[in-house]
Amino acid sequence: MKRNAIYGQSGGVTTVINASAYGVIKACLGNSEIDKIFVGMRGIEGILNEEFVDLTLEKRDEIERLPFTPGAVFGSCRTVLESDEQFKRLFEVFAAHDIGYFFYNGGNDSMDTVFKVSEKAKEFGYPLKAIGIPKTVDNDLMNTDHCPGYGSAAKFTAISMLEATYDLRSMCHASTRVFIMESMGRHAGWLAASGAIAKLNNGVGPQIVLLPEVPFHEDKFLAKVEDVVRRDGYCSIIASEALKDDAGNFISTTDYVDSFGNVQLGKIGNHLESVIAKKLKLKVHLSIPDYLQRSSRHISSLTDWEEAIDVGAYAVKLGLGEGVTGKMVSIRRENDDPYLKHYETVDLGSVAGKTKTMPSSYISDDGFNVTEEFIDYLKPLIGGEAPGCYVEGMPSYSKFSLETVEKKL
Amino acid sequence: MKRNAIYGQSGGVTTVINASAYGVIKACLGNSEIDKIFVGMRGIEGILNEEFVDLTLEKRDEIERLPFTPGAVFGSCRTVLESDEQFKRLFEVFAAHDIGYFFYNGGNDSMDTVFKVSEKAKEFGYPLKAIGIPKTVDNDLMNTDHCPGYGSAAKFTAISMLEATYDLRSMCHASTRVFIMESMGRHAGWLAASGAIAKLNNGVGPQIVLLPEVPFHEDKFLAKVEDVVRRDGYCSIIASEALKDDAGNFISTTDYVDSFGNVQLGKIGNHLESVIAKKLKLKVHLSIPDYLQRSSRHISSLTDWEEAIDVGAYAVKLGLGEGVTGKMVSIRRENDDPYLKHYETVDLGSVAGKTKTMPSSYISDDGFNVTEEFIDYLKPLIGGEAPGCYVEGMPSYSKFSLETVEKKL
Repeated sequence: MKRNAIYGQSGGVTTVINASAYGVIKACLGNSEIDKIFVGMRGIEGILNEEFVDLTLEKRDEIERLPFTPGAVFGSCRTVLESDEQFKRLFEVFAAHDIGYFFYNGGNDSMDTVFKVSEKAKEFGYPLKAIGIPKTVDNDLMNTDHCPGYGSAAKFTAISMLEATYDLRSMCHASTRVFIMESMGRHAGWLAASGAIAKLNNGVGPQIVLLPEVPFHEDKFLAKVEDVVRRDGYCSIIASEALKDDAGNFISTTDYVDSFGNVQLGKIGNHLESVIAKKLKLKVHLSIPDYLQRSSRHISSLTDWEEAIDVGAYAVKLGLGEGVTGKMVSIRRENDDPYLKHYETVDLGSVAGKTKTMPSSYISDDGFNVTEEFIDYLKPLIGGEAPGCYVEGMPSYSKFSLETVEKKL
Repeated sequence: MKRNAIYGQSGGVTTVINASAYGVIKACLGNSEIDKIFVGMRGIEGILNEEFVDLTLEKRDEIERLPFTPGAVFGSCRTVLESDEQFKRLFEVFAAHDIGYFFYNGGNDSMDTVFKVSEKAKEFGYPLKAIGIPKTVDNDLMNTDHCPGYGSAAKFTAISMLEATYDLRSMCHASTRVFIMESMGRHAGWLAASGAIAKLNNGVGPQIVLLPEVPFHEDKFLAKVEDVVRRDGYCSIIASEALKDDAGNFISTTDYVDSFGNVQLGKIGNHLESVIAKKLKLKVHLSIPDYLQRSSRHISSLTDWEEAIDVGAYAVKLGLGEGVTGKMVSIRRENDDPYLKHYETVDLGSVAGKTKTMPSSYISDDGFNVTEEFIDYLKPLIGGEAPGCYVEGMPSYSKFSLETVEKKL
């Protein structure tokens, strides 16, 4: 008996979340057990509000351009499901549209949502296969070797650090001695650490990598910067936005005050720039890529892009037939070089709401860089350049009608 | 009679300045009138200090990788020639190494240097062909349709604005409503304006473009942001770092104070972020690409890259035979679509130290965007994607020995 499937995007975007959407949609279209493939606009928010797009009605050409498109084409949300009333409503909506499969694409908070939906479906007696599809540039999900989205953000970060360090080196004798890039990553240092792989082919990259896993000591940091500038003539730094002191308090919230007197969050780059300029009297350039770090589809990793499509397709396969529910697709690494991996499933309960930080074996003894073990881990994830779709020098993306189907409730 | 040539890089880098170096070097190697092709380390600074690299001694493979390499491979400087003592020294160095050709690659200050060297050579009776090769991401040189380096920085800026605006749009209903990118461009709005072409294929891009050519009025700006958010749900903004008030004073130096109480230059992004958060109570994300804007070789424009090589080769051709001196290579556009252009020369005196700002016909009536006329101007300059050279997922660049020749003075 054919039933309908629904897919949703949740949490911060990656450059390959639409590639996972593509994997899900392609696996559903033409599958004998699935009738319609719906997408909920803005994830669970639109699903609760019965805002569905029927992908079988969208143009196939546009679906084929999905994996080239950044952002979250169908909108994303940070909505959390809590009350039984919400779940009651959810299953009423699902029942009205005969939804038998729920594929949800997100990070650890979103995996918590899928976990709850799966558990509550059993409690309410609603027949549903709920599968989580991992996604986060932060790479902080438990029980998976890495997360789709991370490899691409890491590749952009590393290449940008390489290019900027070449820039810095070009003129360090004339003016600027220090370059700082502030990296995303609220709870773990994976993304900041990726900047270190800049040195791979050319031996040039950040000499200092500041991770939230290592308590920040201003004096030690300034001494290190001074040493590096004395040795190399310049110092290139990548700093996680989430640096903390010994007591675990964010560094950037304690000092940075804007022109209105507001203490601001997450301006670690401005803070470090000020400290170096003031105490070391060195000229500093500061880069804060912000959204660019998680949206630069133009330089996505081929490996990451292909895996993002695969995990979407694998999620659909899992739900079919006897099927499973309450599971997340996981990537299991078999070997670093040559890179070998396979997909499997893990219980959502072991992932939901948890955070995986960098292990100490990935961090250098002095705490100012990564180890070769981390480079070996990261290298395959940035492998290859995902293809783009350009028209007149600019990318061309999916243009869906995104017309929502008639509401039934 | 064969003589030697010298090439130097000056001022801020572009992603294609090494492509121009490649054009010069390839045109010199094997040319019957030129013996050795030297490069001065750190431009005129190294030349005055007799720090020359002999390119005929470097590996040909590494020369072939030059056009794939960002930064200024031979180092750059901001040294200004002023005293007759400096010129006397310069011509002594040139005479000691039998330099008959001086090719200098830079922006308007650097063109001033070439102009002076050419004039002083006549005054001192030193036989020299001095030719300027244009280069600047700022696109603010007079008497050329555009400058090598601009098209690539514009392409990176436009694609980044497109990708970031897709990111913003994905979640604008849940949290962040406004995205701001701070653009380089100290004296003219060309680079900030390039963000507007983001809308080319997808109709999505910055709804507000803030240019230094238009005096900034906070009230009008805030009203515009509010209107756009009401209409579209989100507002994407690109702002030149050099915004000024009616009196011509930089906006960003008047308000922005760091945590040490220092008034800082060029933090217009932080200023706009504060104003919007404070007065409109909207959540803002801020991106400051900084060096990334002028060093992102991985997404350079093919047209720009090819032209950068061409202007280098053309400069060499100009100096040979009867030859000319005191000239800059200029790009003359013949047609927008199809894009047709040719190379010619202009007097350095008409370029040196001058700044070309955006004409009013390129700026929309309300001052918050560009016109279609500007889009027609910019479109061919971002055309095509310059090839890259990747090994294991990361770029691989020229690795020169950069051993300097024996000093003769």
